[in-house]
Amino acid sequence: MTASLGQLPVDDIRDPLPPQWRCYMSPQGRRYYVNTTNNETTWERPSSTPGTPKMSLRHKNSLPAGTAIYLSPSELSISSTSSSFVINCVTFPSLACMPEQQLLKPNEWSYCDYFWTDKKDPQGNGCITGFEVLLQKQLKGKQMQKEMAEFIRERIKIEEEYAKNLSKLSQIPLASQEEGTLGEAWAQLKKSLADEAEVHLKFSSKLQSEVEKPFLTFRENFKKDMKRFDHHIADLRKQLVGRYAAVEKARKALADRQKELELKTQQLEIKLSNKIEEDIKKARRKSTQAGDDLMRCVDLYNQSQSKWFEEMVTTSLELERLELERVEMIRQHLCQYTTLRHETDMFNQSTMEPVDQLLQCVDPAKDRELWVRENKTGEIRPVDIEI
Amino acid sequence: MTASLGQLPVDDIRDPLPPQWRCYMSPQGRRYYVNTTNNETTWERPSSTPGTPKMSLRHKNSLPAGTAIYLSPSELSISSTSSSFVINCVTFPSLACMPEQQLLKPNEWSYCDYFWTDKKDPQGNGCITGFEVLLQKQLKGKQMQKEMAEFIRERIKIEEEYAKNLSKLSQIPLASQEEGTLGEAWAQLKKSLADEAEVHLKFSSKLQSEVEKPFLTFRENFKKDMKRFDHHIADLRKQLVGRYAAVEKARKALADRQKELELKTQQLEIKLSNKIEEDIKKARRKSTQAGDDLMRCVDLYNQSQSKWFEEMVTTSLELERLELERVEMIRQHLCQYTTLRHETDMFNQSTMEPVDQLLQCVDPAKDRELWVRENKTGEIRPVDIEI
Repeated sequence: MTASLGQLPVDDIRDPLPPQWRCYMSPQGRRYYVNTTNNETTWERPSSTPGTPKMSLRHKNSLPAGTAIYLSPSELSISSTSSSFVINCVTFPSLACMPEQQLLKPNEWSYCDYFWTDKKDPQGNGCITGFEVLLQKQLKGKQMQKEMAEFIRERIKIEEEYAKNLSKLSQIPLASQEEGTLGEAWAQLKKSLADEAEVHLKFSSKLQSEVEKPFLTFRENFKKDMKRFDHHIADLRKQLVGRYAAVEKARKALADRQKELELKTQQLEIKLSNKIEEDIKKARRKSTQAGDDLMRCVDLYNQSQSKWFEEMVTTSLELERLELERVEMIRQHLCQYTTLRHETDMFNQSTMEPVDQLLQCVDPAKDRELWVRENKTGEIRPVDIEI
Repeated sequence: MTASLGQLPVDDIRDPLPPQWRCYMSPQGRRYYVNTTNNETTWERPSSTPGTPKMSLRHKNSLPAGTAIYLSPSELSISSTSSSFVINCVTFPSLACMPEQQLLKPNEWSYCDYFWTDKKDPQGNGCITGFEVLLQKQLKGKQMQKEMAEFIRERIKIEEEYAKNLSKLSQIPLASQEEGTLGEAWAQLKKSLADEAEVHLKFSSKLQSEVEKPFLTFRENFKKDMKRFDHHIADLRKQLVGRYAAVEKARKALADRQKELELKTQQLEIKLSNKIEEDIKKARRKSTQAGDDLMRCVDLYNQSQSKWFEEMVTTSLELERLELERVEMIRQHLCQYTTLRHETDMFNQSTMEPVDQLLQCVDPAKDRELWVRENKTGEIRPVDIEI
């Protein structure tokens, strides 16, 4: 997935890149740059001036081994770091320091761009995740399709009833003793009712096999599939919460160790002693270890987030595809319905024309746009915790 | 009526008439001839030889005043006269002596030509008159028309029910939460059901006003009218029976008187006596009187028969006209039915085509022919009693 997303070129009109460089979006929504000549990648925007140092993507979060981390007091709480803020244990870039996050699929109103933050549920108690909003859309779509099948079933019953009544009437021997040519015309008129009945019966049977049945059988295991998606994403989110808690804990431990180290250092300033020097060494070791712990926790968190992010994008794109397929399927079968109506020629064509026109205009992409505009929960994507 | 019938020229190809003469049929079915130059009429076929004596129509049955009638023994019973036979007190020409009676309306299969004799009724008990056969046809026609109205009513009910169900279904909020362009197409599809419902409702309401109601209101007093016709013709027929009995009675009285006169004459041959001569004078007077009585009775019978004949022709032509009108009315309204079906365009036109074609072919004249062929009771018309 990341491969296909990563290859979306993102244009930046204001400051043209050197000719061999292209700008792409990472899954985390950050821009990176690829040299199409030698496949060199970098986070820093290459300038036309040659010789600018470039840092490889792979080394972004790692520090040289053995380097001790020292957090300034303001860095001791993640929520107060200037570069990001946290919603429900997910870190998002701070708008102040990252003014613009390019969309993954600009101009497409793709699900993968608009459901990153949580949403207060309509009853006002608690939140639902953006992914749940997407799932609800899917389940509602499935329900609509079931209701359309029900509607078609009712129509089938009406047609069958009508056909039955016409056929019965054509059998009633009323005025069957009329004689001569008038009698013949009358008998034919009665017979025409039986023909009409047959036309309606055929219509109802085709409605059943060509519209109702496809509606009913399309995605029979749909709810189970959706539950599986839901569990998968919810599990990843739960892991993310755990990992975030671990980061917080490690950060607090590191702060404690730093405070202890500071205390020891102050003591050493007051009186020199081998004991205290020993203590300082020990405290420094512990602080370094706490720093390493924090680093590991942050890495784990970032891995979880990356995994969640990827799955969110993959799954929401899958849901988008499913919705498109559903709309296409329904449109196609409603067209089949109007075709059947035309074939049976049972009523004024002008009645059906607007239906046909509107069916021609059915556009899943537009529908998605409308729905997304109405229901989107947030387009700012989470970012890695940076230390 | 007689005027219009009398003017039907009847051609006789075998022996052409002198140029100024035309041949016509009398109500009694006898030919007479009209000189178109001077309006002279005669029963005798004028020959091209000039100077042939002609007898005026007016004097046909009258004898010079005071002429005594003498019947030969064979003439003393009407039923045995060679020139005619009797069915239910109506005299018909004997086929032997009048081989051909021209039809009043040749090639038209007119009611007025084919219902002169009586008919055994289908159950085999008793007879019904030809006129009753005609009346039954009329009443059956009226019944057929009523049954067609019933049929149309049933159709109206089916259409109303169908429209009601479609309209109800279009109101059901199934899948009404479908969104976007698909939602719009779906809403239009549901709306199209309401439009269809309206089309069917309009069809049913037009069926009611333009087909059912005309069928129901066409000739509301029909049965009463038919009863009046029936009574009128039956009364005339009854009178005819009475007059026939009077003729028989007078004929018998004359025979008695003649026998008496003969007896007296034989007595005079045996011995001459003033007394007997006186008796013979008396018997001759009585015989002459009985002859006059018979003459009068025959005249009365012939008048009755003429009246009945005229009314039979008039009324059967009226019934013929009524039947034609009924068939035309029904044809026209069934055409209206198919037009309405086409307008509503509710089913395959090919279903309606044969009905339309057959309605185009509806031909009351042909229907009448078919029916007359099947149901005619006899085309030989009654004739006057001749002495």
